[in-house]
Amino acid sequence: MAVQKPSIPKGTRDFGQREMARRNYIFDTIRSVFRTYGYQEIQTPAMENLSTLLGKYGEEGDKLLFRIQNSGEKAALAPEKGLRYDLTVPFARYVVQHQAEIALPFKRFQIQPVWRADRPQKGRYREFYQCDVDVIGTRSQVNELELVQMVDTVFAKLGVRVGIHINNRKVLTGFAEIAGAPDKVVDITVAIDKLDKIGLEKVKEEMAEKGLAASGIAVIGQILSLQGSFSEKMAAMKKLFEGGSASGVSSEIGLKGLSELEELFGLMDAVGIDAPVEMDLSLARGLNYYTGAIFEVKALDWEIGSICGGGRYDNLTGIFGLPDLSGVGISFGADRIYDVLTGLELFPDTLESTRLLFAVMGADELRYTLPVAKALRAAGIAVEVYPEATKLKKQFEYAERKGIPFISINGSNEIAAGEVNIKNLASGEQKAFPAADLPAILAFLK
Amino acid sequence: MAVQKPSIPKGTRDFGQREMARRNYIFDTIRSVFRTYGYQEIQTPAMENLSTLLGKYGEEGDKLLFRIQNSGEKAALAPEKGLRYDLTVPFARYVVQHQAEIALPFKRFQIQPVWRADRPQKGRYREFYQCDVDVIGTRSQVNELELVQMVDTVFAKLGVRVGIHINNRKVLTGFAEIAGAPDKVVDITVAIDKLDKIGLEKVKEEMAEKGLAASGIAVIGQILSLQGSFSEKMAAMKKLFEGGSASGVSSEIGLKGLSELEELFGLMDAVGIDAPVEMDLSLARGLNYYTGAIFEVKALDWEIGSICGGGRYDNLTGIFGLPDLSGVGISFGADRIYDVLTGLELFPDTLESTRLLFAVMGADELRYTLPVAKALRAAGIAVEVYPEATKLKKQFEYAERKGIPFISINGSNEIAAGEVNIKNLASGEQKAFPAADLPAILAFLK
Repeated sequence: MAVQKPSIPKGTRDFGQREMARRNYIFDTIRSVFRTYGYQEIQTPAMENLSTLLGKYGEEGDKLLFRIQNSGEKAALAPEKGLRYDLTVPFARYVVQHQAEIALPFKRFQIQPVWRADRPQKGRYREFYQCDVDVIGTRSQVNELELVQMVDTVFAKLGVRVGIHINNRKVLTGFAEIAGAPDKVVDITVAIDKLDKIGLEKVKEEMAEKGLAASGIAVIGQILSLQGSFSEKMAAMKKLFEGGSASGVSSEIGLKGLSELEELFGLMDAVGIDAPVEMDLSLARGLNYYTGAIFEVKALDWEIGSICGGGRYDNLTGIFGLPDLSGVGISFGADRIYDVLTGLELFPDTLESTRLLFAVMGADELRYTLPVAKALRAAGIAVEVYPEATKLKKQFEYAERKGIPFISINGSNEIAAGEVNIKNLASGEQKAFPAADLPAILAFLK
Repeated sequence: MAVQKPSIPKGTRDFGQREMARRNYIFDTIRSVFRTYGYQEIQTPAMENLSTLLGKYGEEGDKLLFRIQNSGEKAALAPEKGLRYDLTVPFARYVVQHQAEIALPFKRFQIQPVWRADRPQKGRYREFYQCDVDVIGTRSQVNELELVQMVDTVFAKLGVRVGIHINNRKVLTGFAEIAGAPDKVVDITVAIDKLDKIGLEKVKEEMAEKGLAASGIAVIGQILSLQGSFSEKMAAMKKLFEGGSASGVSSEIGLKGLSELEELFGLMDAVGIDAPVEMDLSLARGLNYYTGAIFEVKALDWEIGSICGGGRYDNLTGIFGLPDLSGVGISFGADRIYDVLTGLELFPDTLESTRLLFAVMGADELRYTLPVAKALRAAGIAVEVYPEATKLKKQFEYAERKGIPFISINGSNEIAAGEVNIKNLASGEQKAFPAADLPAILAFLK
C-alpha cells in the first residue's frame, strides 16, 4: 500500500502530552469544585438520534450537524444519527428519559466534546469540549448563588482574577414592557450597552431607527439615566416598574426580576464572594432561552471575552414531553480558560513531567535500579528507568526533552556502597543516598 | 412541535452519576499508575480522515466504520471522515505526524471512546472506551517489565486478584518452523491450548486434519510433552530450537524468543511481581500483528475472560511512512473491569456521594447555614444545602435517594447558640457543634 502523509480533518486537534496535562489540570480543578457542591458527572453518547437533535438549534444549527452513516454497506440510506452538537439538548433528553431514576433537584455536570460543521478559523474548532454544570427542578435563588460561588472558587484555584456580571431576563422584559415594545428586548438591551460608548442622544437615534415609538424612547432615556449604588438603582427600577416611567405602564414581570436580583445579591452578601460581582443590565447572552438570571464571567487581566456564562431557563425539557422544569446552569469555556492561563503563565510548572530518570549503563546497574524505582513509584513519584544501556549523552538529552528535573546515575561504586546518586539538573547539586532511605530521597526530589 | 419520546441510538449508553463515579474511579486509578512510570496522556480527534482508517482493520473493519457526512447541505458527497475505530491507528498516525516533537522512547497513554457499527449485543457496544498504554521506539525488555508492573499495581489498587499470562510470538514462530509448517502458527498454538482438555492423541488427530505432516506432528508431540519448572521448560525448548526436535530443524527466531522470555522473567524476579505470572504457550492473542511478547490478564475470582492484554509489535507506523519503530503496549478493558468490580463488590462506598445535606426551614436558617457549608467545602467536603424551605420529609427523602449519610437541621435554638446540629442517618447518632469548630465537624463526618 502506498505510504500516506498523515493528517487530521480540518478544525480538529491532537492534544499532546503537555496540552493534555494542562487541560486535565483545568478540568480536574473544575470537577473538584463541582463535587464539593454535590454536583455529579454524567456522560451521554457521542451520537444521538437525529430526531433528538434536529430543530433544536435553528435552521443554521441543523446545517452544522455532523450526520453519521450507519455503515459502509448502506451508504445510500439517509443518516439517522448525528454527533452531539452541545451538552444542553442531550442533558434535556437524559432528564426526560431517566426521570424515574433521578432525584430532583438534579445537580449534574458534564465535560465532553461536541462537534459542529462550522467553517474552522482561529479559535473556532469543529471538535471542542464543553463543560456544563446545571441544576434542574428548583426555582430557588440558592442555585444561582451556588453557581456564582463555584465560579468564584474555580477561578481562585486557577489563580485567574475574574469579574462576574449578572443580569436578569425578567428585568429586561420589564423594560420592554414599560417602553411599550415587548418584542424589542434585544434592541433595548443593545442600546443600554452602548450608552458609555456613543452617548444618550445617539442611542435615542438608533432606537428610533429600530422603530421604537417616542414614548418608548423616553422610557429608555429614563433607564439609561439610572445612577447610584446597587440599592439605589434597584429602588429606581422598582418605581419605573410600578408605573412611574414616562409611559405610566407597569410591569409585573419586571418587579419579579428585581426581586430575584435582590434575593441573589443578598445571598451573595451573606456568604461572601471574593470576585467583584456587578449587576450588568446590558448583558444580552441567551436572550432567546434564558428566563431569569443571566451570567457572564470575564478575565480581568487578559483580553479574551467571556470565559464562562449561563443563566436560568424554564422549559429545557418541554420539547421531550416534560414541561415546567426550571433549571439554571453555566458553562465553562475550556479553550479560552486554557488561553488565559497560558497567556498569564498560570499553569503550575510541575504538571506534566516525570521527576526522576534513572540512567542505565548496563544490566547490573539496571537490576540495581529497578527496585529503587519501584519503591519511589509506590510513594507516588513519577520515575522513569531509561530502557536501554545506551550513551549517557542520549539519556541526558531524553531527560532534557521531557523536562525531567532529576537524573540518577549509578555504577559499580554506588552498587557496592548500596547508594543512589541523584543530580538536580537545574542547580547541578548532586547527592548520594542510601538506596533504602526513601524519605531522604523524596525530600531531595521535592 | 410534537412531543418525542426520547431514546438513544442502539448500542450506545448514557452513564449516570453512580456509573460515572465508578468509571472515573477505574480510569483515575489506571491513570495515576501510568503517570508514576512516566507515561503521559494524549488525545486524538473523534473523527479521522477515512484515508487514515480504511484498510487498517481488514475488510470487515472497513464495513464497521461509522462514516461522517460533512454537513446537511452536501449529503450527496461521499464521506471523507470516519469515527475512531480503535486507539492504535490514531496513535500510529499521531507518532508519524508529530515525530519532530516527540522524544523517543515515547511513552503515551490514551483513554477515549471508539465507535464500531457492530451488531449490538450483551456486553458489545457501538460506543465504548479503550484505555491503551504504549511505549514506542525501544526494543528493551524493560518496557515489557514495566507494563507487567503497571498491571500488577493497577489491579492491586483496585483490589482485584489477577493472573498474568505471557507468551512470545517468536517462540510460536519457532515451533511452526521446527514443525516444518511456518504458515500454521495459529493451528499449532490452538493445539497446544487444547492438550489439557482433549489429550495428546486427539490433538494429533486434529493437527493431521489441519494438514500438518507426520514429521510436524511428531514435533508438536515433543512440545506438548514439555514438563517441569520454567527453567526446565526453557532448557528443553532451547534444545528443540537448536535442532534437537524430531525434525532436526533449528530455529533462530525461536531461540531469540526464548532469550526475550528469559530476560523478561529474570527482570520480573529482580523487581518482584505480586500477581502470579505464568508463561503460557497457548496464548494466541493478536498473532497477526504481535512480533514478541504477548500478554493477557485474567481475574482470578470472577469468570469473564481477559480484562487486559497486549503485546509487542514491530511495524506500527510503517503504513504511515515511518518503518522499523518497535513498540509494546497493553489495553485495559474498562467495561469488563467495571463488571468485575461490581460482581466482587469492590467499589468503595464513598465514591459518589455528598457527605452532608443542610436541610433548610426558612430564610434565616438558610443564611445561617450558607457560610458553614462554604467553610466545609473549602475543606474539601462535598456538602449540599437544600435549595428550598420545603417539608423536612421531602428533604430527608432527597438525602436518602442520593445516599447522603449526614443531615444537619438548624432552627432558632441552634442559631441562637451558634451551633450546627448534625445527624448520622445510618447510626442515628446526633451531635451539636459550635459552628466555627470545623475540625470537630470534619471528624464527625469522617
